[in-house]
Amino acid sequence: MSDLPEPVPGPGEALVRVRLAGICRTDLEICRGYLGFEGTPGHEWVGELVAAPDPGLAGARVVGEINFGCERCAACRAGLARHCPARRVQGIMRADGAFAELLAVPARVLHRVPGDLPDDTAVFAEPVAAAFEILEQLGDVGGRRAVVLGDGKLGLLVAQVLGNAGARVTLAGRHAEKLALARRLGIDTRAPEPDADLVVDATGSAGGLAAALALVRPRGTVVLKTTIAAEHRVDLARAVVNEVTVLGSRCGPFAPALAALAAGAVQVTPLIEAVHSLAEGIEAFTRAGRPGALKVLIAPAG
Amino acid sequence: MSDLPEPVPGPGEALVRVRLAGICRTDLEICRGYLGFEGTPGHEWVGELVAAPDPGLAGARVVGEINFGCERCAACRAGLARHCPARRVQGIMRADGAFAELLAVPARVLHRVPGDLPDDTAVFAEPVAAAFEILEQLGDVGGRRAVVLGDGKLGLLVAQVLGNAGARVTLAGRHAEKLALARRLGIDTRAPEPDADLVVDATGSAGGLAAALALVRPRGTVVLKTTIAAEHRVDLARAVVNEVTVLGSRCGPFAPALAALAAGAVQVTPLIEAVHSLAEGIEAFTRAGRPGALKVLIAPAG
Repeated sequence: MSDLPEPVPGPGEALVRVRLAGICRTDLEICRGYLGFEGTPGHEWVGELVAAPDPGLAGARVVGEINFGCERCAACRAGLARHCPARRVQGIMRADGAFAELLAVPARVLHRVPGDLPDDTAVFAEPVAAAFEILEQLGDVGGRRAVVLGDGKLGLLVAQVLGNAGARVTLAGRHAEKLALARRLGIDTRAPEPDADLVVDATGSAGGLAAALALVRPRGTVVLKTTIAAEHRVDLARAVVNEVTVLGSRCGPFAPALAALAAGAVQVTPLIEAVHSLAEGIEAFTRAGRPGALKVLIAPAG
Repeated sequence: MSDLPEPVPGPGEALVRVRLAGICRTDLEICRGYLGFEGTPGHEWVGELVAAPDPGLAGARVVGEINFGCERCAACRAGLARHCPARRVQGIMRADGAFAELLAVPARVLHRVPGDLPDDTAVFAEPVAAAFEILEQLGDVGGRRAVVLGDGKLGLLVAQVLGNAGARVTLAGRHAEKLALARRLGIDTRAPEPDADLVVDATGSAGGLAAALALVRPRGTVVLKTTIAAEHRVDLARAVVNEVTVLGSRCGPFAPALAALAAGAVQVTPLIEAVHSLAEGIEAFTRAGRPGALKVLIAPAG
């Protein structure tokens, strides 16, 4: 908890007053030293523009993508700033994040929040976009038998997004109360049958890949969403013999995420466990770090 | 080494006199107990038909695919007998293999050897098909920067097949004499640069995946050809952050393999280290098991 100087937006940057920010598992990892990041964490947020290069936007509510590319390399020119080798990543790598009252952020990564979308829904734009990344990578999943491993926040979002896209989704997890929540969200939580077309590892654990490989059919696909910095121990012979595709998946597109939130197609507010002020930051992180915790939000002005 | 009764072909099966058979790393693993197989190993071979359901084929030289599907399941109906859950795999799983004088094999898996293709070239049809599997999975690789990890037999075949398909291939290995052989085969062996579009793990070692992940570009592809039954220890965070595709790859199509061998486009005879008779089987396996060994062939009638 620090009194930091007010950030000064650079060229092309906007100044944002943070209204609400979400604590993600990556934030907990960062606090344990992941990636050696020493700035302010926080990359899930909704805020209002205090100052922007385009004065017409002043006062608008916005969310923002978290990868700030160099705008010059081949990845950036291909529209893939999230794979720019020189990128900064908000709250994770060389860019301060949203657990603060004010935030300087490149205006080009901002998206306006649809007018009637509440803050406590818009703040989920980043993790919902990460769920949509799977659709961007796989294309049509209609009719595919999908298993989502992990009943945490990301698993509950991924299961909804895949289900909306027409996949036949089963969610597997270890927390009775979160599986009950999943069922209230319309997600099937019966024990998954093996031979799935698609298995998404959203366990956040080093055992996720092995569990996924045990469920996927020959020539099926495993999507890895787990980014914890841990050594996986896995016998890959089965993946080779069955010619499985294992696909890493990270940040995703904001536009379909905001559209789905605006349409009410992805329900996020049932995932909120608590809202804390910035002054209660330590308590908020402690709570978010408990096993089985759902989304803990921070309201800097709260 | 055993005197076994002459195999009796069942319905739809042919009887083949083995002319030449190759020892593969999988055979060495099987002799160490891999998969618990207790029959006769050997799945790379060329032979002549002694008896066949189609009498017109009698006397023909043939090679054969190694996966014998049930012909009834969804995989078999889709032409993917190599992923039939009830399959037998020659010399590996519930079907005797080619380190024998005579072999009973379903006629449907046989391919005629082009008339002028020598036995010591045709015997490579199976591993060359395994190299072509990568093209079947990836499609066009023209212009892609590819790194093949492993200067063993499979690596030398994969490098040639990818190079012929237009990829810009570098082969990395640890054996000076095999790297020199690679260069004689026209393969670039300069130290690979990172940021490859495609990395093929043909190391046969549990460290192959980690090495491949260190070389592949964001959103690039790693093809796993290593099937050893070992626990891989690998930090997958990098694969997730870089959204890498990791693709298991096993047996492949024989038709393009035979065509490439017939055209002289893939050179295999420089990979032959020795030819032994069946009576010298123990010596042959000992030789094939030495570090850095190339292809050891067995001529049952030799």
